Amino acid sequence: MPQRSPLDLPEGDPFGPHNLPYGVFTTPHAPHLRKIGVRYGNHVLDAGAAAAAAASPHTEQLGADTLNPLMAAGRPVWQAVRAEVLDWLTDPAHRSTIEPLMHPLPTVALHLPFEVADYADFYASEHHATNTGRIFRPDGEALSPNWKHMPIGYHGRAGTLLVSGTPIVRPQGQRLPPADTSAPHASSPTPVFGPSLRLDFEAEVAFVVGAPSTVNTPVGLSGFHDHVFGVCLLNDWSARDIQAWEYRPLGPFLGKSFATSLAAWVTPLEALTAARTSPPARDVPLLPYLDDSAAEPGGLDLRLEVALNGHTVSRPPFSTMYWTAAQQLAHLTVNGASLRTGDVFASGTVSGPRPDELGCLLELTWGGRRPLRLPDSTRTFLEDGDEVTITAWAPGPQGVRIGLGEVTGQVVPATP
Amino acid sequence: MPQRSPLDLPEGDPFGPHNLPYGVFTTPHAPHLRKIGVRYGNHVLDAGAAAAAAASPHTEQLGADTLNPLMAAGRPVWQAVRAEVLDWLTDPAHRSTIEPLMHPLPTVALHLPFEVADYADFYASEHHATNTGRIFRPDGEALSPNWKHMPIGYHGRAGTLLVSGTPIVRPQGQRLPPADTSAPHASSPTPVFGPSLRLDFEAEVAFVVGAPSTVNTPVGLSGFHDHVFGVCLLNDWSARDIQAWEYRPLGPFLGKSFATSLAAWVTPLEALTAARTSPPARDVPLLPYLDDSAAEPGGLDLRLEVALNGHTVSRPPFSTMYWTAAQQLAHLTVNGASLRTGDVFASGTVSGPRPDELGCLLELTWGGRRPLRLPDSTRTFLEDGDEVTITAWAPGPQGVRIGLGEVTGQVVPATP
Repeated sequence: MPQRSPLDLPEGDPFGPHNLPYGVFTTPHAPHLRKIGVRYGNHVLDAGAAAAAAASPHTEQLGADTLNPLMAAGRPVWQAVRAEVLDWLTDPAHRSTIEPLMHPLPTVALHLPFEVADYADFYASEHHATNTGRIFRPDGEALSPNWKHMPIGYHGRAGTLLVSGTPIVRPQGQRLPPADTSAPHASSPTPVFGPSLRLDFEAEVAFVVGAPSTVNTPVGLSGFHDHVFGVCLLNDWSARDIQAWEYRPLGPFLGKSFATSLAAWVTPLEALTAARTSPPARDVPLLPYLDDSAAEPGGLDLRLEVALNGHTVSRPPFSTMYWTAAQQLAHLTVNGASLRTGDVFASGTVSGPRPDELGCLLELTWGGRRPLRLPDSTRTFLEDGDEVTITAWAPGPQGVRIGLGEVTGQVVPATP
Repeated sequence: MPQRSPLDLPEGDPFGPHNLPYGVFTTPHAPHLRKIGVRYGNHVLDAGAAAAAAASPHTEQLGADTLNPLMAAGRPVWQAVRAEVLDWLTDPAHRSTIEPLMHPLPTVALHLPFEVADYADFYASEHHATNTGRIFRPDGEALSPNWKHMPIGYHGRAGTLLVSGTPIVRPQGQRLPPADTSAPHASSPTPVFGPSLRLDFEAEVAFVVGAPSTVNTPVGLSGFHDHVFGVCLLNDWSARDIQAWEYRPLGPFLGKSFATSLAAWVTPLEALTAARTSPPARDVPLLPYLDDSAAEPGGLDLRLEVALNGHTVSRPPFSTMYWTAAQQLAHLTVNGASLRTGDVFASGTVSGPRPDELGCLLELTWGGRRPLRLPDSTRTFLEDGDEVTITAWAPGPQGVRIGLGEVTGQVVPATP
């Protein structure tokens, strides 16, 4: 039986011609030579070599060792490059040139696909924010009074965004002894130091800024498609005990900054056109810069799935997010802050209304009080050796599924 | 009368041979050619040209267009380069070569001296944290229970660090109407949108990371001098009304991210050896990774001065900071987070115990309730046209003062 060409995909492949995500890879023969790749089925196209062979006007961008030059080039270039890549992969005239440039996915190493500039993380799921408020602040209101007026967010540590697959060393830090955890506001709590006992994942969707903006020029809701290059799954690993003790009054810091995992594949925004959907109805009137009632639907119908050691533990629906990515971007820049190529802003934990749609263990176990049943064990928080894998798909054209690149990571013991 | 050589400084010049701060400059003849400069009195040495003329082994680092390569090279190189530069500036044998490479300070343009990686901001003054707690949370404890156990901090927006002298456009954003400001937790407050009415400065000291560290390898208290390249004054402009409305529960975000001003000159840590001093006595025992009781003195005797439209309004003493920069760095990395060349971590507002030592208008006017008297006017918060300039000096060897490069900025009206 002749071997099937990597260009002949099974019908409905989630990484088919409607998807075409970008990444950066190396081969074992040249482990230091980073190249831009486009995923097609279970193969990776060497996009720089393809561009050179086709004498593409975008050979410089596709021949780079990160996505940054392509991302910086702006939407018209993104559209032109996407059309070229589709042509290379699907027009039989290119087959003999392109086939040798396809690497089987298991044979390549994947790297962080772009240089990260700033990293901001939002808190855009009403279900997650409400649950977290109830768990962390049982005596207060679940949602802070500002929550329905603006997408709440904070800046995270850009330097510790790690590519999917990087082992996650259990962080150490200050936390209250377990007995004190429920009373962080006792008059004189005394912290202890050690490995986090409440390590968690957070299933999130990250948006990657391509085209920069200038200072004092808010991009507004309408700027979203011109500035955002694409979408990645993200796992915002969180040490809940460190976070609970440190976060007042300036927010999360070391409970988050040890590691954040990013998928190796950036799905172009254009691949998600069919997934656009309306966000949930809003409860309060929004200020004009956030009011998207007259805009095109700003939600995205992404179906996430979280697996813990191979067992599906949740299916968070991104379509339930209260705040859209376009609103987050409009908010981020409304004070005059500029965008740089490589800025990442993430959604915050994606949680739906149902118990099997929650995006982190904090919610799935209600603060560790209701252990999660796995086939052969239970979990409150993550144990050493645990592997968390987040996948997702979106509806594409003609009933095809668009797969998002997975983000996975295994917890390894704290460094002694 | 013959013109004095730029190499002959008046005795006691605060930018003399014991100082030698680094910056990046351009000249009007080549406005796009960024060069590394060393400030000497009121002149700037073209350090790249000097290195080339001397056939220095560090010509590549000094010939770069940012300080990053020099910063990344590590402490032995920093020491060697500092010795070379001192030799060029003070050995008469080099005079004829060096003199033509000295540019009068007013003739050059100064730029951000390095590419910023991550930016973290601490909250290390007990006086500032206590005052802020009393003003923002009059019904709660002034200091959160964690404050004396760890240096509290958060990540800020690295992409909006701007070089001293850049105009500061008044930010716009959500805030509660003035009547509601005192009750941000009313059951259903309704925000309005517009230019901030409570724009403030914060006088801070920033530390610049040179040598990077690897993930999961905390640098500890002892790593400070190997990783930190130098010190800059910083103004953390703050929109108090935006901040007060947005900051729960994830901390400051748009109230800070519109602009942060950084001095154009980085003072090498080595220039501040004589300024080392013991920090204030600590009230509670510290966990071992923060316990500096047996370490060399970690405080710095920097005397800041804040001028508003040319009138001195405060003299914040950096020696009163509860948490040292070494403790901040130890804390920042104890969870396994890595450092990159260009990381900046700032002290938070420097405020001393006295009313004329407070580092921001929020404290100087007690939340706007006690206007500050200027010779010809009063201020609660900053008005359009106001210029804020922060300067500082430190004791050097033999009674000489070491000047820190100023950080200045003028408020311009919000963009319509």
